[in-house]
Amino acid sequence: MGKGRFEAFSDGVIAIIITIMVLELKVPHGGNIEDLLPLLPVFLSYILSFVYVGIYWNNHHHMLHATHTISAASLWANLHLLFWLSLIPFTTGWMGENHFAQIPTALYGVNLFMAALAYWILQMSLMKTSKDNHLLRKAIGNDFKGKLSLVLYATAIIVACYLPMVAQAIYVAVALIWLIPDRRIEHVLIEKAGEQTGH
Amino acid sequence: MGKGRFEAFSDGVIAIIITIMVLELKVPHGGNIEDLLPLLPVFLSYILSFVYVGIYWNNHHHMLHATHTISAASLWANLHLLFWLSLIPFTTGWMGENHFAQIPTALYGVNLFMAALAYWILQMSLMKTSKDNHLLRKAIGNDFKGKLSLVLYATAIIVACYLPMVAQAIYVAVALIWLIPDRRIEHVLIEKAGEQTGH
Amino acid sequence: MGKGRFEAFSDGVIAIIITIMVLELKVPHGGNIEDLLPLLPVFLSYILSFVYVGIYWNNHHHMLHATHTISAASLWANLHLLFWLSLIPFTTGWMGENHFAQIPTALYGVNLFMAALAYWILQMSLMKTSKDNHLLRKAIGNDFKGKLSLVLYATAIIVACYLPMVAQAIYVAVALIWLIPDRRIEHVLIEKAGEQTGH
Amino acid sequence: MGKGRFEAFSDGVIAIIITIMVLELKVPHGGNIEDLLPLLPVFLSYILSFVYVGIYWNNHHHMLHATHTISAASLWANLHLLFWLSLIPFTTGWMGENHFAQIPTALYGVNLFMAALAYWILQMSLMKTSKDNHLLRKAIGNDFKGKLSLVLYATAIIVACYLPMVAQAIYVAVALIWLIPDRRIEHVLIEKAGEQTGH
Repeated sequence: MGKGRFEAFSDGVIAIIITIMVLELKVPHGGNIEDLLPLLPVFLSYILSFVYVGIYWNNHHHMLHATHTISAASLWANLHLLFWLSLIPFTTGWMGENHFAQIPTALYGVNLFMAALAYWILQMSLMKTSKDNHLLRKAIGNDFKGKLSLVLYATAIIVACYLPMVAQAIYVAVALIWLIPDRRIEHVLIEKAGEQTGH
Repeated sequence: MGKGRFEAFSDGVIAIIITIMVLELKVPHGGNIEDLLPLLPVFLSYILSFVYVGIYWNNHHHMLHATHTISAASLWANLHLLFWLSLIPFTTGWMGENHFAQIPTALYGVNLFMAALAYWILQMSLMKTSKDNHLLRKAIGNDFKGKLSLVLYATAIIVACYLPMVAQAIYVAVALIWLIPDRRIEHVLIEKAGEQTGH
Repeated sequence: MGKGRFEAFSDGVIAIIITIMVLELKVPHGGNIEDLLPLLPVFLSYILSFVYVGIYWNNHHHMLHATHTISAASLWANLHLLFWLSLIPFTTGWMGENHFAQIPTALYGVNLFMAALAYWILQMSLMKTSKDNHLLRKAIGNDFKGKLSLVLYATAIIVACYLPMVAQAIYVAVALIWLIPDRRIEHVLIEKAGEQTGH
Repeated sequence: MGKGRFEAFSDGVIAIIITIMVLELKVPHGGNIEDLLPLLPVFLSYILSFVYVGIYWNNHHHMLHATHTISAASLWANLHLLFWLSLIPFTTGWMGENHFAQIPTALYGVNLFMAALAYWILQMSLMKTSKDNHLLRKAIGNDFKGKLSLVLYATAIIVACYLPMVAQAIYVAVALIWLIPDRRIEHVLIEKAGEQTGH
């Protein structure tokens, strides 16, 4: 099965998710700087989630670039990932509205954890589809960043119930880990291009 | 007529439908777990509809994959399908808000029934367009799952007026029937690929 | 300039317009059929606008299919068309909320008139871009349907101030005129395909 | 890395931004012309922002057309641009709701300034990616319009605090400067096409 529509649909859903989050930034009635201040936590949570959804798009893009064959199971693994990503506008809004309180911060972590788990399942599904995807297998390697993220999210969920600001710091730290693009896949692709041109 | 823009437009509309449904999950003001509880039925109905829209995208994807020629009538049959799918966020929200009460559950069934009917009309339209689509005809076969779904939806609409939870169980059952991907089309495509490579 | 991104962007905007209109169908609190009744005019206006936006997508699709070269002026003519289409959710909602009253019905007509004018400008712009588009010129011909629609919309705007239901009938009539796909373009394309294969 | 998905994702996000702005035009309850009057400033700010987002799409389209290689850094520079564009519906709504008052007008300028800066960063990032993009480097030249816009936005932000209407005039003037499509890139592309065909 071709991956064109698979990518197009994922792009569409991720583009909508990243954009409708801004609808949580409700336009205030007054026209002074003070009227904007209550929106600050919502704005900060918007930035965090924008970066996270951007990371997912980026990694999804790289992963699919190294993929050739997509199975029916992968289609559903992808929809499963999109489901958790689609909840990010809600959990982001709740966390922002409640000024990063304990429970909303923990729920945000649950959402990130489930999305990371869904991404891992999708990766597994793509890798085992067929031999065509050996390039992806090589590129992913032991997936240290993916496993580390899951552990950090789980830690943050527990920490959030006591020290929500520490959990926020963990979310920012995980985002920074991923902001560094997935050089593993890039390296393997460059190697492959080198082999093909005889270098 | 090419099918590229046909698929792209359908993907766009389905991607928006599946994503704006989450806007019905209104962010609650309080920051405790109790504040989330009233959202549970809306969340459950969101999951059900997410799966249904995902099934439609999946089957649409498979059906178009086996299609070569698209007539003007098929364009309108497709818009007709998208019309009924576009109402799913509304009927889902109404069902969730009213905790799966009789009438909203029945209306949800009407929506699913009409979408299934529209899908069937689109399938008919694509199959009779030209000889190029004989592959699709072969793949669809007697369309047992399609016919069964229509009967089950009709049953659920009637049952919903008395025992809405039984109707919900039927909706879940139909979703499970379809979650199994349309192997008929996959089989025929694999056969065809086999013929072409001489196996 | 290639037309791929031009089509993709137009598809995206039109897909969003056709889908966010459903957000005007606000989920009612009660769970009975009576609670749905006040939504009936909004629903009827939704159907009308869904058909209109569908017609625009369809015709846009056909027109671009017969186009080869897109000038910078055409990009702006297209954005101008998308601007008027983007207002349809607003004018539709206003007309539905006010049960097809005079002024909202007239404003809806103004919106349709401006969109039709913008479509005509885009068509002109595409036709005069270069000799490559002679196929489109031939296909459009004297554009009788386009001119007739403009006259009918103008009539409906005036009539709406006195007899809004007659104006509604005109809107439905124009939609029916266009529901018949643009066979002119299809004929010319079929002719061209015939020439190329030597028939 | 291919630019197909890069363009598709950008198109999706920009298409959603340009369309959800219309949701700020809340449907009024009354059905008379007087009921529309309070919406006039929101409508005017909608037109201004529609044109600005249209300009960004147009220039993005031209810039990518002259680009061959996209680095990982460019992906993030692009998401950074989309972030600032995604805030335009919010700042537009705030400016319209407050009838072009000082602070909202200044904030709108800050948003335009940051988007222009992000566009400039993306341009830099694309230009230095590799030798393949020399065409883009040649096309952009000294980027007089880009630099002038940044100066004008900065001026407008300061002016807005005293004479908001003068700031509005500056925003309209910058839009007009850009409405003239980026002929620099077009010229270079035409030149290149000429060279290839031996003219």
